[in-house]
Amino acid sequence: MAIEDILSELKKKIEDALPSDTTISNVEFEGPQLVVYTEEPRKFADNGNLVRNLAKNLRTRIVVRPDPKVLLAPEESIEKIKATVPEDSVISNYYFDEDVGEVIIEAEKPGLVIGKHGETLREITKKVGWTPKVVRTPPIKSRTVNNIREFMRTNLKERKEILKTVGRKIHRECTSKDEWVRITSLGGCREVGRSCFVLSTPESRVMVDCGVNVGSDENMTPYLYVPEAYPLNQLDAVVITHAHLDHQGLVPLLYKYGYEGPIYCTPPTRDLMALLQLDYIDVAARDARKIPYESADIREVLKHTITLDYEEVTDIAPDIKLTFHNAGHILGSSISHFHIGDGRHNIVMTGDYKYGPTRLFDPAVNKFPRVETVITESTYGNSNAIQPSLKEAEKNLQNIVKRTIDRNGIVLIPAFAVGRSQEVMIVLEEAIRKGIISDIPVYLDGMIWEATAIHATYPEYLNNDLRKLIFQKGQNPFLSENFRSVDSNELRRNIIDDPHPCVILATAGMMNAGPILDYFKAFAPDERNTLVFVGYQADGTMGRRIQKGWKEVPLPAKNGSDMVKMNMEVEIVDGFSGHSDRKQLMDYVKKMKPRPERIFTMHGEESSCIDLASSMYKKYRLETRALTNLETVRLV
Amino acid sequence: MAIEDILSELKKKIEDALPSDTTISNVEFEGPQLVVYTEEPRKFADNGNLVRNLAKNLRTRIVVRPDPKVLLAPEESIEKIKATVPEDSVISNYYFDEDVGEVIIEAEKPGLVIGKHGETLREITKKVGWTPKVVRTPPIKSRTVNNIREFMRTNLKERKEILKTVGRKIHRECTSKDEWVRITSLGGCREVGRSCFVLSTPESRVMVDCGVNVGSDENMTPYLYVPEAYPLNQLDAVVITHAHLDHQGLVPLLYKYGYEGPIYCTPPTRDLMALLQLDYIDVAARDARKIPYESADIREVLKHTITLDYEEVTDIAPDIKLTFHNAGHILGSSISHFHIGDGRHNIVMTGDYKYGPTRLFDPAVNKFPRVETVITESTYGNSNAIQPSLKEAEKNLQNIVKRTIDRNGIVLIPAFAVGRSQEVMIVLEEAIRKGIISDIPVYLDGMIWEATAIHATYPEYLNNDLRKLIFQKGQNPFLSENFRSVDSNELRRNIIDDPHPCVILATAGMMNAGPILDYFKAFAPDERNTLVFVGYQADGTMGRRIQKGWKEVPLPAKNGSDMVKMNMEVEIVDGFSGHSDRKQLMDYVKKMKPRPERIFTMHGEESSCIDLASSMYKKYRLETRALTNLETVRLV
Ligand SMILES: [Zn+2]
Ligand SMILES: [Zn+2]
Ligand SMILES: [Zn+2]
Ligand SMILES: [Zn+2]
Ligand SMILES: [Zn+2]
Repeated sequence: MAIEDILSELKKKIEDALPSDTTISNVEFEGPQLVVYTEEPRKFADNGNLVRNLAKNLRTRIVVRPDPKVLLAPEESIEKIKATVPEDSVISNYYFDEDVGEVIIEAEKPGLVIGKHGETLREITKKVGWTPKVVRTPPIKSRTVNNIREFMRTNLKERKEILKTVGRKIHRECTSKDEWVRITSLGGCREVGRSCFVLSTPESRVMVDCGVNVGSDENMTPYLYVPEAYPLNQLDAVVITHAHLDHQGLVPLLYKYGYEGPIYCTPPTRDLMALLQLDYIDVAARDARKIPYESADIREVLKHTITLDYEEVTDIAPDIKLTFHNAGHILGSSISHFHIGDGRHNIVMTGDYKYGPTRLFDPAVNKFPRVETVITESTYGNSNAIQPSLKEAEKNLQNIVKRTIDRNGIVLIPAFAVGRSQEVMIVLEEAIRKGIISDIPVYLDGMIWEATAIHATYPEYLNNDLRKLIFQKGQNPFLSENFRSVDSNELRRNIIDDPHPCVILATAGMMNAGPILDYFKAFAPDERNTLVFVGYQADGTMGRRIQKGWKEVPLPAKNGSDMVKMNMEVEIVDGFSGHSDRKQLMDYVKKMKPRPERIFTMHGEESSCIDLASSMYKKYRLETRALTNLETVRLV
Repeated sequence: MAIEDILSELKKKIEDALPSDTTISNVEFEGPQLVVYTEEPRKFADNGNLVRNLAKNLRTRIVVRPDPKVLLAPEESIEKIKATVPEDSVISNYYFDEDVGEVIIEAEKPGLVIGKHGETLREITKKVGWTPKVVRTPPIKSRTVNNIREFMRTNLKERKEILKTVGRKIHRECTSKDEWVRITSLGGCREVGRSCFVLSTPESRVMVDCGVNVGSDENMTPYLYVPEAYPLNQLDAVVITHAHLDHQGLVPLLYKYGYEGPIYCTPPTRDLMALLQLDYIDVAARDARKIPYESADIREVLKHTITLDYEEVTDIAPDIKLTFHNAGHILGSSISHFHIGDGRHNIVMTGDYKYGPTRLFDPAVNKFPRVETVITESTYGNSNAIQPSLKEAEKNLQNIVKRTIDRNGIVLIPAFAVGRSQEVMIVLEEAIRKGIISDIPVYLDGMIWEATAIHATYPEYLNNDLRKLIFQKGQNPFLSENFRSVDSNELRRNIIDDPHPCVILATAGMMNAGPILDYFKAFAPDERNTLVFVGYQADGTMGRRIQKGWKEVPLPAKNGSDMVKMNMEVEIVDGFSGHSDRKQLMDYVKKMKPRPERIFTMHGEESSCIDLASSMYKKYRLETRALTNLETVRLV
């Protein structure tokens, strides 16, 4: 059946199901959802069950939108809204999204805009036609988030076309009589870096992750050229589990090589992804390394990204439904659950995950409606890869900071912008607030502040405790006055020229580049200072050399390199990892509901992947296998 | 490097290597070989080492051809040849092959055309320019062979273009830095029928076999549509192990679907393949079943077929060399050995094979220069699949025939046209010749005679004993006067209307169609007659029903079906199989030189493939695996 026929059939079904006094003007696919346009949006708004029942009967996501005809012009609408809401709600911004017929109202006191039982909102709809959504004015402004919102607004028309094309492709008719399911590994098997898989059925092909191996020139990219993936325009969708470069660093390359379809990820992943991609090509340019793509390609990614929240079951291909679940690894990280066919098969791709609580996130989800095949990361898959508890790690870090401050020293912590930095910030904020360490400044340099601002934009992606702290107790730890963003060379200069007891969190995490090197150069010779590693230092990096105990360290300078004398204390604090340790990996599968049939391991050194696979086979009697790159395995 | 540059570089290298008085006029790729044209073909002919050394240095197959300029017109050439050779050599035919500058002289006494130490041949070359090749006039005329030769002659120009295109593609430059090898299973795993594999490297893709499952409508075709195979024009080559339909039945379909490259097989496989393909679409048309392709597609196959003899090492892709070895299964059947890269990997695809001597063929070859991965058939892979010896089977058959003839009965043997029919013919001929059974006619009906004629055309593909019998003792068993080809409906009618003691070999082998049914209908009611099964009868076939002991058998008739009363004796004679039994399968791998690293099983029922794989693992401690359809396994 042609897609036009499918649409008019759907329209007829909806009209038949609606009460006779409720009319609709049009229906159209928009990405994974069906949009129903009506000149009477309030009738739908007043009857929440109407849409729910429609969606259930038609087995698709449905959104009701006001017909563009009934929308007041934005300027006029702002006047009307201002006249309707109390002044002390402090509205900081309006976003009119014609794309969806919504006006997003950013206010410092959202409750006042909503009104008792939502009556102010209903009043607004009546006056302006737009559907109002109220969000809290973000406590920290993120340049990235603002830029992305602005970019989306200026590309509304093109984006609308993209979503329409994607939507019509998703809802095309299935034609094959065959019923197989296969998974192809293009990278990230028996190695860390360049994670990339393709899930395929007779109807569709979906890529999961498209990472870059930043540590290797030779094996930098996944095997994108094999026929299971190439030509790329035959992919239906690309799903990104989280924003780390080893999972998404080459997504812009896909567009350069001819991909034209959608990217699915959570909203925080989209924003962090853009931030890290831009930084990736910046750093590559600065180091005069090969730059695989340009900022124009990154903009293509944004235009094609469709964000999904956790637990939203979504059609991404005629026979594949995707649901993201919390992975507990970094902000917006997700376990991807694929439901294929009408119950033919269910696959869980874990991405990176933490099956244990952290300061920021809840533990990874391992309860699903159904699951047969699990493809799990294995970073700490080795039998001996047991990490100390977070409690121990935190105590350890506090002691080090205390000791250093007491002797008038400076604590220098190299960290990745996304993940451990925010974890450490929260630990330090609490220690200062509780008086465990004294009231010192904590400087954040090199994208850490920007990444933190993105965290603050998405409080609903943080764990319960943190959300409670922020919303119920009004204590947003990220807003602590102890945190100082180092947003200029002058400020950095000042800190270096006027040393005082403080903590400095700076990138890059493995000390290969970035502002951390400036601080290190200045503070390494003084034995009162301490360098603290909270993350893994790969072989060949500056961080690893220092861990090994080098006493003189060569740093890049204008003319060749400077030798820096190492007198500062060096400490390693394990336990802050965003990855599950060996026990958590084993428990994640053991306690999974329902019990899966088959486990594949990936994302770990070869020995870790093999060790984990064989241990799970021995302990749980499941079919297991350490995947290798370039295999296509049939699941059904 | 462009292919033109590669060619002119090769030309220069050859000129440098030749003695200064020997000149060449041109070089060009033609399929897998490099053709060197010269106006002085005799200088090359006189110095055999010249070409051998060139081939060795350039690492490619080289053929020297007379420049077309020096070739006399065919009519004139015939006159000159006639004047040169003695009259009693009895020349029956001349084939002038401009394609290769050869004249094939078919003579009843080849020795007289060759002359003492080849002096007559040299005389001919001198007079006509063509390179003479002498073959014995086939003792039985094959319509198929003649038609194919005629077809090739009339399509010389197109074929020359095809070979040039293929040749230039094979000799293109390698460009990838990656070094993997993969194998994809598209059909014939854990099942018999629709055998099909794709071997791939970063440079090339080669399909091995493309069979049809004649027993199943639903799973009739291999999964040709998956990206490892499709689009088909990205395949470099298709290799066919032997002529049975489950290995080649859908080759013509490949051209219908866009394949444009070469087919590699042995010369007898090419001829039997055409015979069986034509019969396949005939039978399908008669039964009003779906006909997947037309005779035009079969002609495409012929145009694109490049035949290779056993033990000829041949480049079929920039990084893949193919060598066929005797498989002992049917005429021209081969074990395919793939040598990939410069020693990167070696794969043996067995196709169907008999690791044991039969009346027709030598045992399958299992000694190779190198081998790491073996993909073996498993038809009789089950632990209990032990067959009686050929000796016992023959004795058994002789006794049945004797007994039936003694009571004035008729022996009816359903058989496939290719393989067991010829085996049984030889056994019967010997028994009659030695007086073990009396001097009765043996009727051959339904393609059996034609298939036998193709056997007689290729005596060099039969085993030593048979060749000796034919050439040294002058006893060609196929020429026995007892054999009568049933080449008309009248003759068949006569046999049926005038029953007399005889043996009738007729197709189809499982009694689903063909002339066997006419005989069966006539002879089943008489208890003096015997029906003898010498081959496997699949579930659901008429043959299987009769084996089960049905006493009334419904046969298709003009109006619905006739019931036939079964009074004739029914016998099953095991042991004539062209497949290795379980012990031979195990021994084939055990005695393989060198010892392989890894065994994959295919071509058998699921339990047979699994049983064989697990037995080989337990006994030989090799990595083993029963492949499933739709996998892509990485070998290196
Ligand atoms: Zn990660
Ligand atoms: Zn990762
Ligand atoms: Zn066969
Ligand atoms: Zn076969
Ligand atoms: Zn070989």
